[in-house]
Amino acid sequence: MAELILNRGAERRLKRGHLWIYSNEVDTKRSPLRGIDPGSQCPVLDSHGKPLGTAFVNPGQLICGRLVSRAGELDAALLHERLAAALALRERYFGHPSYRLVYGDSDRLPGLVVDRFGDYLVVQISNWGMEKLQGQVVDSLIELVQPKGILLRNDHQGRAVEEMPLVNEVVFGDVPEMTPFEENGVPLLAPVHTGQKTGWFYDHRDNRARLNQWVKGRRVLDLFSYAGGWGVQTLARGAASATCVDASEQALDWCRANAEHNGLGDKLQTVRGKAVDVLKAMVADGEKFEVVVLDPPAFIKRRKDHKAGLAAYRHINELAMRLLASDGLLVSASCSMHLAADELLDCVRGAAHKLQRPAALLSSGGQGADHPVHPAIPETRYLKAHFVHLGG
Amino acid sequence: MAELILNRGAERRLKRGHLWIYSNEVDTKRSPLRGIDPGSQCPVLDSHGKPLGTAFVNPGQLICGRLVSRAGELDAALLHERLAAALALRERYFGHPSYRLVYGDSDRLPGLVVDRFGDYLVVQISNWGMEKLQGQVVDSLIELVQPKGILLRNDHQGRAVEEMPLVNEVVFGDVPEMTPFEENGVPLLAPVHTGQKTGWFYDHRDNRARLNQWVKGRRVLDLFSYAGGWGVQTLARGAASATCVDASEQALDWCRANAEHNGLGDKLQTVRGKAVDVLKAMVADGEKFEVVVLDPPAFIKRRKDHKAGLAAYRHINELAMRLLASDGLLVSASCSMHLAADELLDCVRGAAHKLQRPAALLSSGGQGADHPVHPAIPETRYLKAHFVHLGG
Repeated sequence: MAELILNRGAERRLKRGHLWIYSNEVDTKRSPLRGIDPGSQCPVLDSHGKPLGTAFVNPGQLICGRLVSRAGELDAALLHERLAAALALRERYFGHPSYRLVYGDSDRLPGLVVDRFGDYLVVQISNWGMEKLQGQVVDSLIELVQPKGILLRNDHQGRAVEEMPLVNEVVFGDVPEMTPFEENGVPLLAPVHTGQKTGWFYDHRDNRARLNQWVKGRRVLDLFSYAGGWGVQTLARGAASATCVDASEQALDWCRANAEHNGLGDKLQTVRGKAVDVLKAMVADGEKFEVVVLDPPAFIKRRKDHKAGLAAYRHINELAMRLLASDGLLVSASCSMHLAADELLDCVRGAAHKLQRPAALLSSGGQGADHPVHPAIPETRYLKAHFVHLGG
Repeated sequence: MAELILNRGAERRLKRGHLWIYSNEVDTKRSPLRGIDPGSQCPVLDSHGKPLGTAFVNPGQLICGRLVSRAGELDAALLHERLAAALALRERYFGHPSYRLVYGDSDRLPGLVVDRFGDYLVVQISNWGMEKLQGQVVDSLIELVQPKGILLRNDHQGRAVEEMPLVNEVVFGDVPEMTPFEENGVPLLAPVHTGQKTGWFYDHRDNRARLNQWVKGRRVLDLFSYAGGWGVQTLARGAASATCVDASEQALDWCRANAEHNGLGDKLQTVRGKAVDVLKAMVADGEKFEVVVLDPPAFIKRRKDHKAGLAAYRHINELAMRLLASDGLLVSASCSMHLAADELLDCVRGAAHKLQRPAALLSSGGQGADHPVHPAIPETRYLKAHFVHLGG
């Protein structure tokens, strides 16, 4: 059986609790990666031959190993135990069963994401190791959650990297087109079959809850709105109006569906277009909002995009700020793991400075408790949202 | 009139929005600091003689200048305008008038802190510049807030550094010994005359709100409890019990007063003693709690204390974790400006690793919106709280 022997000292990160093995950390003379079947579970040893655990291995990837245990294989029993622990954690910290049920490495299940929408589950698998356990994942989820339906959303581009097939299918029961759930007490619908990722972005739950406290009677602009996670919730909490901007007409349809689901369709405006173009047009028209939510997709997907991405964050934060009324609130978010929270804040500071507007950072938030950060794996933390009051 | 001419390039920080001038940044050949009366307001110029604004000056301090405006002096009218802006900000973002009304540099009022407890205000002044404006501060506050009483808590050690007199007196109306207010919907009493600082630590409001969601039926240990800000609030939100630990019997009296104020005196336990000693004794007795709140005073007061302070944080986090039941929640906080949030998290990670307990970071929080961070002044951000679930 193939094994991974690490270079001298390369065990250090793992010993601190991290779970990833980079291909240049493997002593490929003693333990060649070539020939290992992607998704194999292999023992991992330090340079002295001391066992460190067992990893999913994909020899072609930069991260060629992902530790699944400090001992033996991730088999059906251990998988079930881990899924049960993930469920227990969410049941302990959440009231309504609407949450990310499994968050990969943080739940010691590398390559697995499961979002729960009440009685329905959406599963995403992103490496070959977990792919081989797909049947057991589904069986365990049925036993633990007793769902009405499970949808496998294995059509994301992350799979292409590992040369895995793209699949989007219901593997158990039925799953409605628009799946009901709730967030921060607001009933919503997630387009799980055709929406982005699993159909919803639960990660901003706490940040939306924060914003919801501060929107009564305010006019809200929701940029990159997708299905209205921010905008529709602010309406449900008394915002005077919400204007959702998205490049996709389908996303705006979902915004409307969510607003109507809350009987608030008359307070929603939608604008189709690229955010930067729409912002520029609104600036030219002299439009103003009391609250602007700027929650763009990741502008920095890889470390080497950092410089260009940072410039893009600066630019769009400045544009967004130009639309903000005096004494307005900017929510500036980023889901780029490679952008530090302080760097994002500096984009806001720079824009405020340029526009000569006094700025006060009221709060900064991250991902919710259903996306727990693994304290030894900084890469499991990616989300930030700054709440900045702007005078002048 | 004396002025401060800065060394070449020393204006850069100020131009980015910061407000502090260090004594080694002043060109003392061209503009000697010696002889300037502490608390004078002096024009500040860059090395080319370009005006940068006006600063409070204290020639004997490391931070010898604090910019009060980008133009002329902070006079009674500008002071009133700034206080009005500070009040408007809080009224915009808070329901109940219980909050920090003025937070120094972030409200462009260096050296001034005002905490509001409904109809009562507690004022702290920490530099000579603001001291000279004390009369105007009080007059403006009376006009803006129409309080029933104003207490001047100018007896803190920060004043000793500036050789300012220590004073603790009611300067307007009456202020009750235990002043009623509320936090997160829980009615409380603050010992404003004799308690620490202004009598209450509003800065953890949001972190306490977060914890309050997760305490129903749980046994809570509140270390360094002071007047029960964490412990009593968890009782009000359904905790089975709260054990407050403090070295001061008076602090524990205040805990009891707050618990009884909520009709929950029977669910409160108090233990007098130094936290480390009490923790060790509890570990020896095999005691366990489902929630442990570790909110110590600043272990790192000056940058040079960083190493020793970090070791102290590591030690006490490990002790606290030993008292945490399986699937328990640790709230690990620090108010040391010199300790980074990630360093504190690493203390928790290290302790969890040592005790072989899986850890999941559920949430991280900072100071509340009434302690706004000035985006150009990192020193205005100091508070952090990590919420970590511990298995095993």
